[in-house]
Amino acid sequence: MKSAAIRRATPLDSDAIWGIFHPIVARGDTYAFDPRISRAEALAYWLHPANWCYVAEHQGNVVGTYVLRSNQSGPGSHVANAAFMVSLGAQHLGVGRKMGEHSLSEARRLGFLAMQFNFVVSTNEPAVRLWQQLGFEIAGTLPGAFRHPEKGLVDAYVMFRSLALA
Amino acid sequence: MKSAAIRRATPLDSDAIWGIFHPIVARGDTYAFDPRISRAEALAYWLHPANWCYVAEHQGNVVGTYVLRSNQSGPGSHVANAAFMVSLGAQHLGVGRKMGEHSLSEARRLGFLAMQFNFVVSTNEPAVRLWQQLGFEIAGTLPGAFRHPEKGLVDAYVMFRSLALA
Repeated sequence: MKSAAIRRATPLDSDAIWGIFHPIVARGDTYAFDPRISRAEALAYWLHPANWCYVAEHQGNVVGTYVLRSNQSGPGSHVANAAFMVSLGAQHLGVGRKMGEHSLSEARRLGFLAMQFNFVVSTNEPAVRLWQQLGFEIAGTLPGAFRHPEKGLVDAYVMFRSLALA
Repeated sequence: MKSAAIRRATPLDSDAIWGIFHPIVARGDTYAFDPRISRAEALAYWLHPANWCYVAEHQGNVVGTYVLRSNQSGPGSHVANAAFMVSLGAQHLGVGRKMGEHSLSEARRLGFLAMQFNFVVSTNEPAVRLWQQLGFEIAGTLPGAFRHPEKGLVDAYVMFRSLALA
């Protein structure tokens, strides 16, 4: 991934973001989005004005995207939340890890004190393992909270890490 | 609370709901809402079309309100989420318990399989105790995730219970 670059998204990235988002969500096995979500709804969510949105480019193509935001409002706004998607055609290039590291750096820069993922599907083992490698712990298990298209009701994890420097 | 009645809210309840919501949120010690949230923002959130919204009446006055909704979309939509507020002038009447029991019954009736609270502030001990008495368990602890106005950063809990009948 030496050639990968991460930058803030612009509205001009909308086609590329939808091109990544839609196939992943349509599979329905990793994210709690309606698999039939429309392009307009998806982009309104992902490019919401309260989000910081980024894209990862590899060899000139947008192959990943992530969003960063406060997980809660007011007295909970010092904890960040982030969501990540890597193009199904660009798995195993390290794009997710690169975006994860970038998000931690950005979250610190923006003054967040911690980062939380609300809903990591337990059967999405590459994601669970990546977040653990990046310092996240499973803070809680939500029993049967995700309806997997093949496996039925499976657990989801709440994952959390402090952004305090060691 | 024999005289209390719980019914679906209507737009005519807006003044009463804001009258309960605003003082609680302005104190900033139990909910992750911006204490300066406007009436319009608060009502748009509480009476969102995707929510089921209820009010509790005691001696003819609205003294409590709660909302019920899916906690996640799509493959996570079988888990309910709810949020509760009791008028500061009507604490200790059992309104919260009555609404909690009502919400569990309503959630079952609507077909939800479980209920999750994403952010119960740990120092809000009456709430934590009530939810435990109503069968919720602390599924996870979010370290320092709530900035309490007097106590500084305190933990918040994710609480969860199945709605399967025993």
